Amino acid sequence: MDQKLHPYYPQSANLQGFVPNTLDVLQILLYFFGGLVAVLPFLAFLSFTYSKTKLSISRKMILCWLLLCGCIHLFLEGHFAIYHLDIHTRMDFLSQVWKEYAKGDSRYLLQDPFTVCMETITAFLEGPGCFLTVWAFMRQKSYRYLIQLVVSLGQFYGCVLYFSTEAMEGFIHGPMWHPLYFWFYFVFMNVLWIIIPFCLIVDSSLTIMSAQVSVDNSGSRKRR
Amino acid sequence: MDQKLHPYYPQSANLQGFVPNTLDVLQILLYFFGGLVAVLPFLAFLSFTYSKTKLSISRKMILCWLLLCGCIHLFLEGHFAIYHLDIHTRMDFLSQVWKEYAKGDSRYLLQDPFTVCMETITAFLEGPGCFLTVWAFMRQKSYRYLIQLVVSLGQFYGCVLYFSTEAMEGFIHGPMWHPLYFWFYFVFMNVLWIIIPFCLIVDSSLTIMSAQVSVDNSGSRKRR
Repeated sequence: MDQKLHPYYPQSANLQGFVPNTLDVLQILLYFFGGLVAVLPFLAFLSFTYSKTKLSISRKMILCWLLLCGCIHLFLEGHFAIYHLDIHTRMDFLSQVWKEYAKGDSRYLLQDPFTVCMETITAFLEGPGCFLTVWAFMRQKSYRYLIQLVVSLGQFYGCVLYFSTEAMEGFIHGPMWHPLYFWFYFVFMNVLWIIIPFCLIVDSSLTIMSAQVSVDNSGSRKRR
Repeated sequence: MDQKLHPYYPQSANLQGFVPNTLDVLQILLYFFGGLVAVLPFLAFLSFTYSKTKLSISRKMILCWLLLCGCIHLFLEGHFAIYHLDIHTRMDFLSQVWKEYAKGDSRYLLQDPFTVCMETITAFLEGPGCFLTVWAFMRQKSYRYLIQLVVSLGQFYGCVLYFSTEAMEGFIHGPMWHPLYFWFYFVFMNVLWIIIPFCLIVDSSLTIMSAQVSVDNSGSRKRR
């Protein structure tokens, strides 16, 4: 296939062997978000039920978010991490999702080193980290706020780098200001992982500081 | 200047306008590490003296490390972040240091988006973060272990991405296995920011968990 016969930016991008999706945009969005909506009640059930301690409603919603993150990191981003070399030629559903998403950011089809490394870390460290955080809150482990902080910081830093590297390249990998590809895929679907992790970083930080104040005030000055 | 007339990898790299260093390798290493060694007693004096609380020797050494990090992040990496667009044509001392270092990793002269963004964040967020951590320990602030964790995680994640992106590209930006350029510049001078931050992450984590255990055991169950 001629290297220019693809729907990605920049048009000069070499996507040798690119195979167009068989599913159209609406089908992909419907199946993908339909799948997320279908799985949400199950995640909510887990978050709201399987806990040894009494958790607030807001905490249960955070756990539900973390379960959702864990699934997205491990399955969607894990799929990309594993198949990034030839994802532009693949026809399975998740590859078609990535080929659709890449219309907003073609780095996902171009083996961009930063994108691949960041997604690999997100998938296989932060994904399990999300599940571990949920478990830690359900069992009131002493590392629960710590692991929430570490996972959220990883998501936050990865996403800041994701935006800033593309900004530095002048947003050449997608059609700038396009309502669907730029604003929905590239901006909205990523900025969630800046805003919500930032809130969870603040949440963890306040609790960690408050615990430290208690320890400092109790006169336990063994460790400084 | 012909684009191939430079000492960097890959030889095909376009370094239009490259001006060779006037200082030779030994001069650069001598002045740079000499400068660090000269500034260390001052940093050690600060770490070991200006504290309102009694700190252990190991804690003072950690603060000395963080002061050194802060200086390197803010001045050396800050210089790169500001001048990365034309650093290959500049002749000031820090630019010559970067032109020498880039013999181990030419991404520093090629405006590599990840390298520039990561270094900018390191310089202007983690640099001040290091100084804030030192201040927090000297004044026994409740956020001292938290900020040490955040700064060290940033350094750690940035450095893991730094190595993994170059590995993914097959180490094309420097002469692989070269004793000075690969092992000393690229590996040793960076792996420090994996090993030491990892130790500080563990240090912060243990303290944070221990504080949480105290709070959990004291029956203060307001926040979960």
